[in-house]
Amino acid sequence: MSVEPAGQHTVRRLNAALVLGEIAATPGVSRAALAARTGLAKATVSTVVDRLVAARIVAEGEPMRRAGPGRRASGLALSPLGPHGLGVEIGVDYLACQLVDLAGAVRFQRITAGDNRNRKPSVVLTAVARLIKAATRAAADAGVRVGGIGVAVPGLVEQDTGLLRVAPNLGWQEVDIAREVAERTGLERVEVGNEADLAAVAEWRRTGLADFVRVSGEIGIGAGIVLDNALFRGVRGFAGELGHVSVVPVGGDRCRCGADGCLETVAGQEAILRAAGVASIEDLTTRLSTSDGPAVAAVAGAGRVLGTALAGLINVMDVPAVVLGGTYAVLEPWLREPVLAALGERVAEPVEVLRSAWDTDAAAHGAATAAVQAIMADPDAFAERVADQ
Amino acid sequence: MSVEPAGQHTVRRLNAALVLGEIAATPGVSRAALAARTGLAKATVSTVVDRLVAARIVAEGEPMRRAGPGRRASGLALSPLGPHGLGVEIGVDYLACQLVDLAGAVRFQRITAGDNRNRKPSVVLTAVARLIKAATRAAADAGVRVGGIGVAVPGLVEQDTGLLRVAPNLGWQEVDIAREVAERTGLERVEVGNEADLAAVAEWRRTGLADFVRVSGEIGIGAGIVLDNALFRGVRGFAGELGHVSVVPVGGDRCRCGADGCLETVAGQEAILRAAGVASIEDLTTRLSTSDGPAVAAVAGAGRVLGTALAGLINVMDVPAVVLGGTYAVLEPWLREPVLAALGERVAEPVEVLRSAWDTDAAAHGAATAAVQAIMADPDAFAERVADQ
Repeated sequence: MSVEPAGQHTVRRLNAALVLGEIAATPGVSRAALAARTGLAKATVSTVVDRLVAARIVAEGEPMRRAGPGRRASGLALSPLGPHGLGVEIGVDYLACQLVDLAGAVRFQRITAGDNRNRKPSVVLTAVARLIKAATRAAADAGVRVGGIGVAVPGLVEQDTGLLRVAPNLGWQEVDIAREVAERTGLERVEVGNEADLAAVAEWRRTGLADFVRVSGEIGIGAGIVLDNALFRGVRGFAGELGHVSVVPVGGDRCRCGADGCLETVAGQEAILRAAGVASIEDLTTRLSTSDGPAVAAVAGAGRVLGTALAGLINVMDVPAVVLGGTYAVLEPWLREPVLAALGERVAEPVEVLRSAWDTDAAAHGAATAAVQAIMADPDAFAERVADQ
Repeated sequence: MSVEPAGQHTVRRLNAALVLGEIAATPGVSRAALAARTGLAKATVSTVVDRLVAARIVAEGEPMRRAGPGRRASGLALSPLGPHGLGVEIGVDYLACQLVDLAGAVRFQRITAGDNRNRKPSVVLTAVARLIKAATRAAADAGVRVGGIGVAVPGLVEQDTGLLRVAPNLGWQEVDIAREVAERTGLERVEVGNEADLAAVAEWRRTGLADFVRVSGEIGIGAGIVLDNALFRGVRGFAGELGHVSVVPVGGDRCRCGADGCLETVAGQEAILRAAGVASIEDLTTRLSTSDGPAVAAVAGAGRVLGTALAGLINVMDVPAVVLGGTYAVLEPWLREPVLAALGERVAEPVEVLRSAWDTDAAAHGAATAAVQAIMADPDAFAERVADQ
């Protein structure tokens, strides 16, 4: 029996993604091996590969950058001169930018400090545009294209429109960041995402964990959830608002969100510093390293409550691992035990608690990675854009 | 440019599901219209349809069962004589069974009362096997096949193996229900699932809601989550354990799960009855209907706490609707306002609160529906089994 494919165009795009995925997974692979691995006809593989090579997504016959023992030194591989992803994070007190190649290597990075809470969106977005232009120039100097731009923000982003609904800790509301950036740079294809989500993408990239929640304590508390190797965004893109889960049912402090007794009011950075009687995270870690009683108790108390809130998330979502990021990564040596104790009391299955290996560059890296993923998932669309130019 | 499909076998199966989905969505559709709607070649459509008709999944040229005004009275439609799904629920105090056709119509139903907490798994599973045999006989008498069997249980079911890990309210641990049922009935293809999950499938079927959480209060509290028209099971199949989220951080009652201050200890059926000073749900609704103070206060208090726990779930998962099922459906007139008030305080986006239209048959219907969905998702595999016999 012979059955026609479900639409030639769709099949072509799926085949391109399939072939590229195999090339990414087995650098140095030959066309013949690709046909054997994918089950596609050799002629099909050749057509797809030619197109990927023409778009410079794939390089053929070059020495491999990551050749290991026993691997062939040539064949097909992701091109280091292929399209790069450009990621920017608008932090509460910094801007970060990364340029990442198809294999995930960082090709350009810049972080500029500065309190964005005291600045209008238009001022901050002009600085963002400058950063994007600098990274784009760096890409051009290296002879590579920027294939997509991602911007990470500390707020609720509508999944469908990319609109920043509200960023409480910046004091921003209803900002169309993609449009503002496009107006300032002339660059389209700007994807806006939540910083905790994009930091989780970076974590996924580095750890290879398929399922985890990454929770970070900063001015606010954010959670990014990865399930089955994909970001879990929720129906409207607002998932992961762990900071506003109720942890003090009666008599809790008022939160910036308007409710009382949210996790942020007890386990947020400011609450921890207040409970420890210190002014900064540096002061806190200094005291913790000398086993200062109030400092250790403040972090342990926050850890218990954080662990209880995470247990609730795990009981409803069934996620087997937690990654502590941001300030929580800094405090991990003192947070780990109380978090594990609270999880152990409330969750039937074992939960792994890990410390993030990322610094403040996590969300910018995740935003750049997301742009790269979009190309890897549909390389044919990128090849078409290149062919049209 | 021409590209070969990504494996003939896979394409054939995908095409069969595609064609069947179109037939289900547009009963009375012609072969020509199917080709136009799917983009498949007419010859392909005919091959697929012939196979579906041979397997009795699709009927051709028969008068339609659900022909409405303006619809054609013949053409292709799901066959009422096609494979049926058989669903069983092992409740804490009843067994329920349903036989459901491809279009979702209930063809056979039986519910038997009896407290399963005082019975060994082997005794209960023998009763389950009798129920399955009765339903299978009813199917044979009607001239239809049972295409798959689902069993719903009030406990944690391992997604990969189907093993019932623990059902606290039955007092069961580590029961391989699929194997036990197969031994007693000779029937393979038994899928075991969590009752809250399968009740959510039934709710999805009746409401058409794409994204919601269905929470039901019985002896325990269960939540079934549907996202993007699919059940959300979590990594190991244990998602939806809302009953064990912490709601009393300090000094809460001990829960059956071993932790303190779980939602079940405050908003479970027993806790509500105790707070209202009554012995049964019937007594409670009688008092509520006369606006008895302690009864109204007990339900309102439970509703506030339930709403706060649901707000936590919604803040981390971003789900826009809640369906109250089981005892909560009975109490909905008195629960609704306090639940909405708690949600309104803690969730930025509006959340819809609905009352389930199902009675105790929800999970059995969901289990039967899941069996039907498995056939609809891969009709070619079913056709192959039929052809092999």
